[in-house]
Amino acid sequence: MSRIRIQVINPNTCQAMTKTIGMAAQAAAGPDSEILAVCPSEGVPSIEGHFDEAIAAVGVLEQIKIGREQGVDGHIIACFGDPGLMAARELAQAPVIGIAEAAMHMATLVSTRFSIVTTLPRTLIIARHLLQLYGFSHHCAALHAIDLPVLTLEDGSGAAQRKVRERCMQAIKEDGCGAIVLGCGGMADLARALTLELGVPVIDGVSAAVKMVESLAELGLSTSKLGDLAYPESKPLSGKFQVFNP
Amino acid sequence: MSRIRIQVINPNTCQAMTKTIGMAAQAAAGPDSEILAVCPSEGVPSIEGHFDEAIAAVGVLEQIKIGREQGVDGHIIACFGDPGLMAARELAQAPVIGIAEAAMHMATLVSTRFSIVTTLPRTLIIARHLLQLYGFSHHCAALHAIDLPVLTLEDGSGAAQRKVRERCMQAIKEDGCGAIVLGCGGMADLARALTLELGVPVIDGVSAAVKMVESLAELGLSTSKLGDLAYPESKPLSGKFQVFNP
Amino acid sequence: MSRIRIQVINPNTCQAMTKTIGMAAQAAAGPDSEILAVCPSEGVPSIEGHFDEAIAAVGVLEQIKIGREQGVDGHIIACFGDPGLMAARELAQAPVIGIAEAAMHMATLVSTRFSIVTTLPRTLIIARHLLQLYGFSHHCAALHAIDLPVLTLEDGSGAAQRKVRERCMQAIKEDGCGAIVLGCGGMADLARALTLELGVPVIDGVSAAVKMVESLAELGLSTSKLGDLAYPESKPLSGKFQVFNP
Amino acid sequence: MSRIRIQVINPNTCQAMTKTIGMAAQAAAGPDSEILAVCPSEGVPSIEGHFDEAIAAVGVLEQIKIGREQGVDGHIIACFGDPGLMAARELAQAPVIGIAEAAMHMATLVSTRFSIVTTLPRTLIIARHLLQLYGFSHHCAALHAIDLPVLTLEDGSGAAQRKVRERCMQAIKEDGCGAIVLGCGGMADLARALTLELGVPVIDGVSAAVKMVESLAELGLSTSKLGDLAYPESKPLSGKFQVFNP
Amino acid sequence: MSRIRIQVINPNTCQAMTKTIGMAAQAAAGPDSEILAVCPSEGVPSIEGHFDEAIAAVGVLEQIKIGREQGVDGHIIACFGDPGLMAARELAQAPVIGIAEAAMHMATLVSTRFSIVTTLPRTLIIARHLLQLYGFSHHCAALHAIDLPVLTLEDGSGAAQRKVRERCMQAIKEDGCGAIVLGCGGMADLARALTLELGVPVIDGVSAAVKMVESLAELGLSTSKLGDLAYPESKPLSGKFQVFNP
Amino acid sequence: MSRIRIQVINPNTCQAMTKTIGMAAQAAAGPDSEILAVCPSEGVPSIEGHFDEAIAAVGVLEQIKIGREQGVDGHIIACFGDPGLMAARELAQAPVIGIAEAAMHMATLVSTRFSIVTTLPRTLIIARHLLQLYGFSHHCAALHAIDLPVLTLEDGSGAAQRKVRERCMQAIKEDGCGAIVLGCGGMADLARALTLELGVPVIDGVSAAVKMVESLAELGLSTSKLGDLAYPESKPLSGKFQVFNP
Repeated sequence: MSRIRIQVINPNTCQAMTKTIGMAAQAAAGPDSEILAVCPSEGVPSIEGHFDEAIAAVGVLEQIKIGREQGVDGHIIACFGDPGLMAARELAQAPVIGIAEAAMHMATLVSTRFSIVTTLPRTLIIARHLLQLYGFSHHCAALHAIDLPVLTLEDGSGAAQRKVRERCMQAIKEDGCGAIVLGCGGMADLARALTLELGVPVIDGVSAAVKMVESLAELGLSTSKLGDLAYPESKPLSGKFQVFNP
Repeated sequence: MSRIRIQVINPNTCQAMTKTIGMAAQAAAGPDSEILAVCPSEGVPSIEGHFDEAIAAVGVLEQIKIGREQGVDGHIIACFGDPGLMAARELAQAPVIGIAEAAMHMATLVSTRFSIVTTLPRTLIIARHLLQLYGFSHHCAALHAIDLPVLTLEDGSGAAQRKVRERCMQAIKEDGCGAIVLGCGGMADLARALTLELGVPVIDGVSAAVKMVESLAELGLSTSKLGDLAYPESKPLSGKFQVFNP
Repeated sequence: MSRIRIQVINPNTCQAMTKTIGMAAQAAAGPDSEILAVCPSEGVPSIEGHFDEAIAAVGVLEQIKIGREQGVDGHIIACFGDPGLMAARELAQAPVIGIAEAAMHMATLVSTRFSIVTTLPRTLIIARHLLQLYGFSHHCAALHAIDLPVLTLEDGSGAAQRKVRERCMQAIKEDGCGAIVLGCGGMADLARALTLELGVPVIDGVSAAVKMVESLAELGLSTSKLGDLAYPESKPLSGKFQVFNP
Repeated sequence: MSRIRIQVINPNTCQAMTKTIGMAAQAAAGPDSEILAVCPSEGVPSIEGHFDEAIAAVGVLEQIKIGREQGVDGHIIACFGDPGLMAARELAQAPVIGIAEAAMHMATLVSTRFSIVTTLPRTLIIARHLLQLYGFSHHCAALHAIDLPVLTLEDGSGAAQRKVRERCMQAIKEDGCGAIVLGCGGMADLARALTLELGVPVIDGVSAAVKMVESLAELGLSTSKLGDLAYPESKPLSGKFQVFNP
Repeated sequence: MSRIRIQVINPNTCQAMTKTIGMAAQAAAGPDSEILAVCPSEGVPSIEGHFDEAIAAVGVLEQIKIGREQGVDGHIIACFGDPGLMAARELAQAPVIGIAEAAMHMATLVSTRFSIVTTLPRTLIIARHLLQLYGFSHHCAALHAIDLPVLTLEDGSGAAQRKVRERCMQAIKEDGCGAIVLGCGGMADLARALTLELGVPVIDGVSAAVKMVESLAELGLSTSKLGDLAYPESKPLSGKFQVFNP
Repeated sequence: MSRIRIQVINPNTCQAMTKTIGMAAQAAAGPDSEILAVCPSEGVPSIEGHFDEAIAAVGVLEQIKIGREQGVDGHIIACFGDPGLMAARELAQAPVIGIAEAAMHMATLVSTRFSIVTTLPRTLIIARHLLQLYGFSHHCAALHAIDLPVLTLEDGSGAAQRKVRERCMQAIKEDGCGAIVLGCGGMADLARALTLELGVPVIDGVSAAVKMVESLAELGLSTSKLGDLAYPESKPLSGKFQVFNP
């Protein structure tokens, strides 16, 4: 089997989180996979709402273009809102996977209903909309927010991590769920330990997405270029978006 | 009643379409309303897919910021995919209305089921997803595409307009619908004449959105700043996005 | 712009509530609009269930017929269950708007999810069915009842109004909603003050409906007469319903 | 087992159809059941839209009141739109069954998906809304209208009946359905013969409703008077509705 | 009216529960009906999950085959998960009714929303899936489990019965439901007394199913053999399944 | 990375199809995976309806038990109806994947909407129910049946394969889909060639499931044993099912 190069895009500009995500991806990757963890050079330091997502989407697309030129075998959008996912699928030749969809899909394979644990309450609506679009609303038992900003996951204090753990335990006790989906790329390194400690599948989208990209690559499947997700119509972009012109 | 200033944002960079949209907005506006028709200085010349939308969303947000600084009373996103709508609602103080949602809402008020007539087939999926998110899937009888690029609406030949008219007539005959929703900002000037000729409501989202913004302004209602649509979290954007920093 | 005459129909026979509703409508109306606040001469003094609605629907239709003969430009059904809405749309030439649909539509334009505060618990099922039919079930965070009869809103004590205010505050605190929909025509005069006090959009359907009728009238849109909402089939009604015969 | 008295209410004022319906009910009734076929003394001669339904609902409720005073063991609303069903359940002590719900429920018990054959196309929207409210949208393969007025079923020519038969055969051939639901009380006498001829269940709501009322009566079950369907709040009705006062 | 023979299949092998179910069926049966209460000779002693259901389904089908050879007029699957229902409909000539569907259908006829009270929490997911497939998710206010194994209903202590009663009372108080559905065949004998005591319809699926089979039989309706539920394709089964070969 | 042993269960007893499936699984498997292709020793020679599924489910469970005793790392149920999936998840310690769910999940990752091509029309209802339960109804553009029995795929004539190819081409042309899901385990060997020839993703569930099992195994995730999918309650099975006793 040939080498699989996977571009893991952290949509925010936080280097620490890019590293966390990259390491989680590497840990999940198969022996034949190479992880290229990147983040946009310009954008938002963390993603905590629709505005942040809209800005981050451009950086995601810039990285998709770079990755495509590098001939990577797949792209991962490592933010739980899957910002720019459909646009990225248009732009890319290789498969593109969002970590929210990856985690949600995986969760339905090992449980009948899952709960989500994320950072700020205001991002819950983004998860709700994704559940609806992906078709998983009825598979979600409950949504939880630890009510701490995303970057507290990178402050080294462990406070956010402790809150995530507490909420997972609470969810398991009260929600009637069978699995937990971690709702932030910055939580990627917590899944394995929590799965072992809590005795239920705790699913991180980054590692889930790595396996999905590997799977698609190995099956010879890629984003359909027929119809809805065909390459963008050819036309000149202007100003700061000229980077996307051929 | 005080003056109502409405910023109508054409998310693409086509001046001709901005003019078409602006005139349709003006024709719909009340005597106390002032229409500010704008488009991004940089971006895509037309919006025909998710990638185009993602790029256009940044230009929309730049205009939202400008409009907010100008103290406008409402913003309209004049592209049928409502690109950047949620992000714009976070950024804005005044109400923000997308023309797809405006047209769909209006259509449900005058008919039990409506059909949509848009440009390229590949944009139908965007309309489908909006119908799902807004809750109107069961109100939509059918979706049609004339299979011509958006900018043929501005080429002066009238060919696209004739195709729109034909598809409306076909939809009325075959779909069991009671109204037509025009699925492109560039069709904004066709609605009144088609309504009169065809004898059924043919609804343009631009004029519908103008009335919705006026309505909200006159009722003293604006985007909720509690929770999901609160202003973006305060943090420095980098590079070409620094324009959004305070 | 020509004068817009709007018939606001309070479906119950309570004169005090008709006055409350008429004043709220007048306060929302544009300078070119004229409000005709009416109620049936015969029927139920308040509407607190399906039976009351079925009786009230006949009075609504009688008023629609009168309004149509007067050549009004739009009709409003000012009871939160929208009694007789579809039938009224068949009978009317001008647009007909129910206050439940008006408030729900408006709420989705300024928030991602809204809560409803109404009077008796037994009317919640009516709101639930409307949410389902209109497509807004997923936009509703929670439903609340103050558990007081409708007419306590008109007893001058202010007790019902205080309970409404308390429930709004509770909903804002607990539901994760971004806006409140007031679930009774008799609450129409509370919306503006509560919006200001509570800092979130508190939406009254009467004023929302006034703006929708004005909007449709100004856009030259009216109820589709193609198919589902065509005028009733011509046939003689008997007995007390002969008033509907031509 | 004691005698079961079932009031079958034809909501329109057509005596011929009342007789058709009554005979179909009698044919379906058990040996211990007594059928009381009635229709309102005042109202519409046939029901072909929402307006007709709203008028007919009052007559239905008048009959419910009479039936309740007579101590009947159950009521049937024998029009496919189930006009006034919820209101009737509030007013009645005994069970109330609509023939649309009865036929739809029965159809799901003998097939995975059914098709509906009704009279005028404009009534299809009523069936669609009922499917949605009852939860059966996904059980309905297709809806058909023979495009003839309801009363042609009673003109003695047999033309409407032939069209119903043709449409049933077409539905069986094209829809992928396993059963047919007849969408009009006036088709009640066709079901048994069509079932035998076509070899698939062809279901008439009148006879289905008779069995449901008998079933509930024999099980000692009746409309819940807890909460949503409690008796109407006590208050004086005025004018022509005083008949409902105690 | 000719005699109706109804085969009531308890899918587990517990004789005591077969007797309980048989007696409940007999109590519900009409004077012309004969109840044949059976259970598989081999299988699981109680059904408390998907595995138990899958095993029990074979026993159900064996009994269906026997019942068909006996020429019964209908079959009932008396376990709340309706195990093997679709397969049984293929195999049977006569109607087949599951007690979960029977109870749920009946509950929607006498209330707007019902609650379910069942045994082990792990079986709730089975009820959820049935609600979704049958279309009744929105009719269910809440699901409750007494957290006792199925067979405690047959231990003679009455403890399980007391817990059922308590949960019904709690549901009535807290859920906003209008009726209760008992979620286990072993609770069949509790419905009538609880209905009387609690003053709301408490519905047992066994008796509900008996009435549905009688209804279908008397209407001359049976499982559609067109398409989806046609007899199984003819082919030889091997090993222990040869009993199904002709 | 340690060796991954995957048990691929063909639920029918056809050795030829077991071989086809096993080879497709092997072709998809990673270098560290070992495929154990098995089928029940007793059961049905092909699965073409609910009855066949119910019988096959027992054989699936027997194989799950054997696989568990062998300590396999995952199980695949290689029939497009996913027979016994939930029961298998209860019984297994390792992950269990059905090929219908696997193919549907994969299809949503590379397209916005997919079409399904299967064998007999009567099995379409099984696919419809799975789409509904899994949440993918809105992702499915259309369902097609080639109207040939399952085993014609193994008769060596290639006729069924030609029909599958034709239907795929028709679906691509008419459905507005972006991918094809092959709806039968016996089509597993067609996916790669059709993907290349038709230029759109043609997805076989067997290979998709292999990658999912490998993914879960490598992530250290397995079926949740908390709640809904816990091991079956311990109790003695009787007769031919004693094989399941410990």
